[in-house]
Amino acid sequence: MSKQIELDLDSIQKAILHIGGLVEDRVDKALTALLQRDAALAREVIDGDNVIDDLELEVEERCLDILALRQPVAKDLRLVTGIMKINSDLERMGDLAVNIAERAEVLAFVPSLPFRPDVTRMAAVVKRMTRDGLDAMVRRDEALALRVWEMDDEADRLYRELIGEAIQFMSKNVDRLGDVMHLVGALRNLERIADHATNIAEDVIFVVEGKIVRHRVLEVKQHILDRAKRDGESTHSKK
Amino acid sequence: MSKQIELDLDSIQKAILHIGGLVEDRVDKALTALLQRDAALAREVIDGDNVIDDLELEVEERCLDILALRQPVAKDLRLVTGIMKINSDLERMGDLAVNIAERAEVLAFVPSLPFRPDVTRMAAVVKRMTRDGLDAMVRRDEALALRVWEMDDEADRLYRELIGEAIQFMSKNVDRLGDVMHLVGALRNLERIADHATNIAEDVIFVVEGKIVRHRVLEVKQHILDRAKRDGESTHSKK
Repeated sequence: MSKQIELDLDSIQKAILHIGGLVEDRVDKALTALLQRDAALAREVIDGDNVIDDLELEVEERCLDILALRQPVAKDLRLVTGIMKINSDLERMGDLAVNIAERAEVLAFVPSLPFRPDVTRMAAVVKRMTRDGLDAMVRRDEALALRVWEMDDEADRLYRELIGEAIQFMSKNVDRLGDVMHLVGALRNLERIADHATNIAEDVIFVVEGKIVRHRVLEVKQHILDRAKRDGESTHSKK
Repeated sequence: MSKQIELDLDSIQKAILHIGGLVEDRVDKALTALLQRDAALAREVIDGDNVIDDLELEVEERCLDILALRQPVAKDLRLVTGIMKINSDLERMGDLAVNIAERAEVLAFVPSLPFRPDVTRMAAVVKRMTRDGLDAMVRRDEALALRVWEMDDEADRLYRELIGEAIQFMSKNVDRLGDVMHLVGALRNLERIADHATNIAEDVIFVVEGKIVRHRVLEVKQHILDRAKRDGESTHSKK
């Protein structure tokens, strides 16, 4: 591997982690705005989206340049294409955080809805998935990536529970229908953030393992577990 | 350009158009199942998702092979990376069609909801966007791609209108709340299909123009219009 490609790869990895940090912060703030009914914080998230958009374009252009000029192969090629995908997932997570903030801004000005504890739990799971997906990338930790994937089931379960409660509540409080629909919109965006975190986890496994995970979860999971066993250590202790 | 890369590029383009045709068919069937309350057709869509998933993986692997083995540059590189993105959008459109079919299956067994004409209109716009996005790819027609993009505003407008009507209806028919929420879920998935069709249009412009459109729509649009003017013909007559 030439010195130059090493520098290039290092630099796009730093850039993607920088974007990841910004996205994590925005998801965090959007959820805090929603849970604490903080309209000013919601507005801050809504107004600050351009930074991530610009960085996303920059990373994509740099990845394309690396493909064209350095013509990476094998692991390096996987890293560049993996980063292109993660980049695109992060940008959408940023957009979804804005959508949550828009709902949070509306909901900050109406009477409180009775869903806070469960929304808090779902928010915690999704924030954890976002954080762990990025950590898995930094550490090339496919076992952590697998756990992000498993957490998505928990996020889906909490989402379905909350939607069920929202429908129950609406049927008894028809006057709050419009407000609850804003909350439902926020939850739906949260659930999509979890999906993108899962995509990132899949991309990390692709970068590390060279395997496309999508639609093949059980097969790839078994492979990772078998190898961990063969190595005589639990996948967990690898970190 | 070597003969081999020409054959490779031709072959992945054929593959992506094949997937595109399948996805179009599934979106179409899911919407017909929803509008005509056809549970058997909904089930057909739900059961047939694996084919697209397998093809998507195959195209992704072939694109990675082309990047590694043929090391395309300039326009060829844009084509390969553009196809990788379109591939991923198509796969998600297929998943969203399944989600719509799942809602359609539930709704086929409950009394009809009074939203059919407007849902039909939104369905027509989104089907058109899907079809035109793929056609723009086949013909390398950036003016058609721009129109897909503009149609997304119409899809968004119809979506917002329908959600407003759904909330109105629910407030007067609390006993139908759960059913309407299934319709809302189907509409939301339809709106996301429109977003993916818009992504495909952006990717077509990237492949043709070498410009990343995202977040820069006005700038790129002006460039395309200016060039069309300079060429002494309307962008429309290019097709």
